[in-house]
Amino acid sequence: MSYDIAVIPGDGIGNEVVDATESLMIDLAASHDVEIQTTQFDWGSERYLEEGALMPEDGLDTLEEFDSILLGAVGHPEVPDHVTLRNLRLPITKGFNQHICKRPSYLFEGVQSPLRGYSGGDIDLVVYRQNTEGEYADVGGREHQGFSNEVAVQSAVYTREGTEAIVRAAFEAATERRGKLTNITKSNAQAYGMVFWDEVVQEISEEYPNVTVERLLVDAGSMDFVRRPDEFDVVVASNLFGDILTDIGGIISGSLGIAPSTNINPSGEYPSMFEPVHGSAFDIMGEGIANPVGMLLSMSLMFEHLDEDELAETLWNGVAEQLADSDAPRTPDIGGNATTLDVAGDLEERLLQ
Amino acid sequence: MSYDIAVIPGDGIGNEVVDATESLMIDLAASHDVEIQTTQFDWGSERYLEEGALMPEDGLDTLEEFDSILLGAVGHPEVPDHVTLRNLRLPITKGFNQHICKRPSYLFEGVQSPLRGYSGGDIDLVVYRQNTEGEYADVGGREHQGFSNEVAVQSAVYTREGTEAIVRAAFEAATERRGKLTNITKSNAQAYGMVFWDEVVQEISEEYPNVTVERLLVDAGSMDFVRRPDEFDVVVASNLFGDILTDIGGIISGSLGIAPSTNINPSGEYPSMFEPVHGSAFDIMGEGIANPVGMLLSMSLMFEHLDEDELAETLWNGVAEQLADSDAPRTPDIGGNATTLDVAGDLEERLLQ
Ligand SMILES: CC(C)[C@H](C(=O)O)[C@@H](O)C(=O)O
Ligand SMILES: CC(C)[C@H](C(=O)O)[C@@H](O)C(=O)O
Repeated sequence: MSYDIAVIPGDGIGNEVVDATESLMIDLAASHDVEIQTTQFDWGSERYLEEGALMPEDGLDTLEEFDSILLGAVGHPEVPDHVTLRNLRLPITKGFNQHICKRPSYLFEGVQSPLRGYSGGDIDLVVYRQNTEGEYADVGGREHQGFSNEVAVQSAVYTREGTEAIVRAAFEAATERRGKLTNITKSNAQAYGMVFWDEVVQEISEEYPNVTVERLLVDAGSMDFVRRPDEFDVVVASNLFGDILTDIGGIISGSLGIAPSTNINPSGEYPSMFEPVHGSAFDIMGEGIANPVGMLLSMSLMFEHLDEDELAETLWNGVAEQLADSDAPRTPDIGGNATTLDVAGDLEERLLQ
Repeated sequence: MSYDIAVIPGDGIGNEVVDATESLMIDLAASHDVEIQTTQFDWGSERYLEEGALMPEDGLDTLEEFDSILLGAVGHPEVPDHVTLRNLRLPITKGFNQHICKRPSYLFEGVQSPLRGYSGGDIDLVVYRQNTEGEYADVGGREHQGFSNEVAVQSAVYTREGTEAIVRAAFEAATERRGKLTNITKSNAQAYGMVFWDEVVQEISEEYPNVTVERLLVDAGSMDFVRRPDEFDVVVASNLFGDILTDIGGIISGSLGIAPSTNINPSGEYPSMFEPVHGSAFDIMGEGIANPVGMLLSMSLMFEHLDEDELAETLWNGVAEQLADSDAPRTPDIGGNATTLDVAGDLEERLLQ
């Protein structure tokens, strides 16, 4: 098989983790007789600062030709964050109907959780985050600035299509995994959007009688990610709640630096996008110490999505074995003092020699 | 001095924690020559199930005559949560302009945090949560149910008055405390409500040049409550973000069962309301094992609000000394096997004999 992959390194450490891992991905695939062609796009905040747009107007048309997209990270101290979002991630996720953001949190052997009493394997959950609407719908408005009692309104929009897509994907995943689904809601305070959300979960649950459904308010759910993370299997959440929970999921499994993320177009009509959960992290940019694991695991999830299961497993297990090996290089965020390149180089030796 | 306090035990363990602590509060006050008159109201979900309303129509008029309100907890498995909210808490907090929800998270000596490496005193932060609007504005709507692509909209409403009130209170608190304020936002995804919020924080910060302001997106903030809780001092957040963060704040400081909460009307025109953060907890109702500490600390914060500082400190320090004493009774949520009444009784002995 052969795949064309669009690579957008983006900003900050996005470049560093792409640089360190791209050839490893290509070489590993080749060793399994899979040909990967990558095309890099220098889209991101630097481009915005020079040309006024993070990506070209026909960016989506360009990306549409590819089998998958790999994204490093976007975000820049000199560009307002919502400009970045509106100009790059929203157009891609929304434009390509990537309704499904799947984010596993797994506490690997050899990685220390900040939570007492948790060690390798104890945390093994996956969040299915709605990825195209909800609280990120970018709908709202403001009164004239400076009015003495000025009002701003921010509206969350939930559609049946967008909600059903994520809920169905979550139930499917629960069926494949341990058969438990936790529905994160806030219907006690949000009687329109979240009551609707709960109804969709209820309806679809009837098609999956073998899945046990638990319902948690987002405040209790966030607390329970800290209190009893081992009891979660599949978690389904709105865009914003999924955003919050996956950052907590990242830290309880050791570091945001190892968390992978996928943005899936369920119909397969458009390419899906894969990226680490971490951001552009300008505070450590240039130091060469960004953790490449989030990107590597995202590549593994890309292989899985492309039905290259053997490749996906080889890469995932290689990372897992490296993390479990206390002599292997690791970056500072998980207690080591190695560089991004050290970690990628060591993994290359493990997998390709 | 003498005060009239309205007491609404509410539902589930709300009744148990009120029953266990009310006379202690009255007797402790009396021993400091402060007279407390309490009037109990049997408002809550049982009343709703019988009479169709959690409180009478003239409930606010009744409450307005009191100096403060103590609330146990509301919420019942047979009443939809948003009905409970709309019928009791929202009318009170909103009707009495209780813009400010102040919730300290303090890791007491003798209480174990689920976070590695944290012990007594290491966590000492306070969240100032907007309490009357934002994501709880109860504004929105739905298309006709069952439309193939049905849409639901949930709007968050931020007013200058409501936002300024909480931001100002937070800056004042930071001035009294360690001089640091963390602004929780999500302006990268919410370009109307949260950009407005950030502007208000920016404007008011100019009046407080001695306060250091840090800005964190809510996902990163939630993660950092787990990663580096000792670095927070005052945290200011919207209604929903404050809801989430204070549950995380509760668990990292040992248990939601010890977290107190205040709903303050800043002008003093209306009574303020004090309540533990925990809910009605039907799962443990009737077992007599609810932690009374959240209620006791809420009573201490009520005394503080009434300018009875000595009483407030006596009660707070009494609880702290009891928690620090490994021989003292404690409830199961913090690792003991004592009952609500054991804990309250022991504290009574410590403070009144
Ligand atoms: C960069 C930002 C817009 C994004 C989000 O809020 O979704 C990030 O936090 C994430 O989780 O991928
Ligand atoms: C009971 C519920 C409406 C409430 C809230 O969401 O504010 C609770 O979670 C809290 O934090 O006091």
